[in-house]
Amino acid sequence: DFNLNCPIPISEYERVLLAHGGGGSLSNRLIGDMFIKHFDNDLLNQAHDGAVFQMGHQKLAFTTDSYVVQPIFFPGGNIGDLAINGTVNDLVCCGAKPLYISAAFIIEEGFPMQDLWRVVQSMKTAADKAGVQIVTGDTKVVDKGKGDKIFINTAGIGQVYEGLDINPRYCKPGDVILINGYVADHGVCIMSSRAGLTFETHIQSDSFALNHLLDDILSVSRNLHVLRDPTRGGIASATNEIAATANIGIKLFEDKIPIREEVKGACEILGLDPMYIANEGKILVFVPPEEADAVLKMMQQNPAGKNAAVIGEVCTDYKGMVTMETGIGSTRILDMISGEQLPRIC
Amino acid sequence: DFNLNCPIPISEYERVLLAHGGGGSLSNRLIGDMFIKHFDNDLLNQAHDGAVFQMGHQKLAFTTDSYVVQPIFFPGGNIGDLAINGTVNDLVCCGAKPLYISAAFIIEEGFPMQDLWRVVQSMKTAADKAGVQIVTGDTKVVDKGKGDKIFINTAGIGQVYEGLDINPRYCKPGDVILINGYVADHGVCIMSSRAGLTFETHIQSDSFALNHLLDDILSVSRNLHVLRDPTRGGIASATNEIAATANIGIKLFEDKIPIREEVKGACEILGLDPMYIANEGKILVFVPPEEADAVLKMMQQNPAGKNAAVIGEVCTDYKGMVTMETGIGSTRILDMISGEQLPRIC
Repeated sequence: DFNLNCPIPISEYERVLLAHGGGGSLSNRLIGDMFIKHFDNDLLNQAHDGAVFQMGHQKLAFTTDSYVVQPIFFPGGNIGDLAINGTVNDLVCCGAKPLYISAAFIIEEGFPMQDLWRVVQSMKTAADKAGVQIVTGDTKVVDKGKGDKIFINTAGIGQVYEGLDINPRYCKPGDVILINGYVADHGVCIMSSRAGLTFETHIQSDSFALNHLLDDILSVSRNLHVLRDPTRGGIASATNEIAATANIGIKLFEDKIPIREEVKGACEILGLDPMYIANEGKILVFVPPEEADAVLKMMQQNPAGKNAAVIGEVCTDYKGMVTMETGIGSTRILDMISGEQLPRIC
Repeated sequence: DFNLNCPIPISEYERVLLAHGGGGSLSNRLIGDMFIKHFDNDLLNQAHDGAVFQMGHQKLAFTTDSYVVQPIFFPGGNIGDLAINGTVNDLVCCGAKPLYISAAFIIEEGFPMQDLWRVVQSMKTAADKAGVQIVTGDTKVVDKGKGDKIFINTAGIGQVYEGLDINPRYCKPGDVILINGYVADHGVCIMSSRAGLTFETHIQSDSFALNHLLDDILSVSRNLHVLRDPTRGGIASATNEIAATANIGIKLFEDKIPIREEVKGACEILGLDPMYIANEGKILVFVPPEEADAVLKMMQQNPAGKNAAVIGEVCTDYKGMVTMETGIGSTRILDMISGEQLPRIC
């Protein structure tokens, strides 16, 4: 009897809410209790950005993401390049060189052919920039009113770099946390274009493939512990997930987190906390303290890392939690959000 | 200027139609002219059920499909097991042993949690039966009215069997064409449950993973030329694609094609041609004539092949086309349909 043992009791959630896809604690519970626990296997249980497994003499990474961003065209990109960059970055976060991408389209009947063409061209351009190939695909069309313009799924295969062993479990007290630049650009860009807001300075999505940045980092250090792209749920969710998985504390320094003035301003207007806002071209890098300087300098020489900064460290207190040292010297706990700040951000 | 060079001129199709996803000639044109030509690479150009490439010492197959079937629950299965079986079968058609599957969900806000749970359990059961693991995933939720209950994308990775080289280009005049059982069950099941029709005999979907059948076939012959699952567009579209790709003629024997009486009857009521109707547990096997007997006998010993039959052959006349010898001895051309017989069949 199916009704007896649904892992999310209907007394709590009879129906799926937007927040179940928001990247916060409701998402995590759905994914953990419904999917991971039931599909149960060692690879899925890694709770990683992708699965990493041995095939013959090689270690491969395999990842998937569906993109449902709304609007589909936005300053700095569109759903097409986002679908390539996002999946490339998930492979990067597995410590892999991205190689092959699949593309599966769910198109709503009546979608303008020209818009599809723009999306396809952007995907090709993004794939070329990242040096990956779109090697297989699928096209479905659903009746008008049963979809929303276009949804794109991309899955990706990459080859894990020799000697690299990246896993959220591997961060250690003392590890230094770096980020490659300004936070919250993507989420604020989407939110403001959705709201029809215009700010004095045009805020663009940071959608960008980070595999070439990883190559640069690897040229100075192979001693990386964790790589994580702070997408849905932003830096707060990404660091909370890592802290929980590794059962360590993470301390962030508010003053060190790079954020554009106009993004800060937009967040105030929109009532959003930039720590919870999605990025699509950012990566958190956890390295032992002795490697941090070299990694930071190398990141700053790459166009995708020129505003890189050290933003935190791994510690032994507040295990499983993320704390934020504010400018005035106080410390606050940075929770995982339970709900949905920004639906359909990617 | 994007408007100058859209490969599908807006004078012809300003908007995407349901038929662009139907598996017929409009689909083929969208996929060929918009996607394959523009994403252009050797692997994609194989025009296969998946991409096959070398990684180190191994040959891998990689495939993707999004499932948008409506209704999501139907006699004989649901969108969950379909999403596993369909992707497993695409890997089988690449001559691969299916290993790893990704699962990406696009859920409509308000979807009943119990229904999600039923789907998840079916996926797990199907994965276990096929011996594959669901190793990575993604969950998105879209606003009510912007999706349709649930869409599932699965991508899959398989290992191509040593010495197997399956490709639609490899069929040769003289090749014998086998199928593993009754055609059109899936499409007729979906169509009749959608129409709310009840037939005297309950027609069930044939949704089934065929990798164990392939293992059995390989135990008697490794000399297979083409494997193809006749899903969207049915046997007619699958054979037309192969005939066009290989530039050979395909002759089918109408009387030899296994079809249940009740399916034939339902097709008459619904006004459908069973040759164009989707299957989800069928495979076309092209083998040299000297291998056909052994392959047929072995197929008939497997539960998924007990109604297997020889249904046609590859010939030199009518190059690029499919002909059908009817019971009364006449021959007709079996065209690729241009439109959409059954939208959202998988």
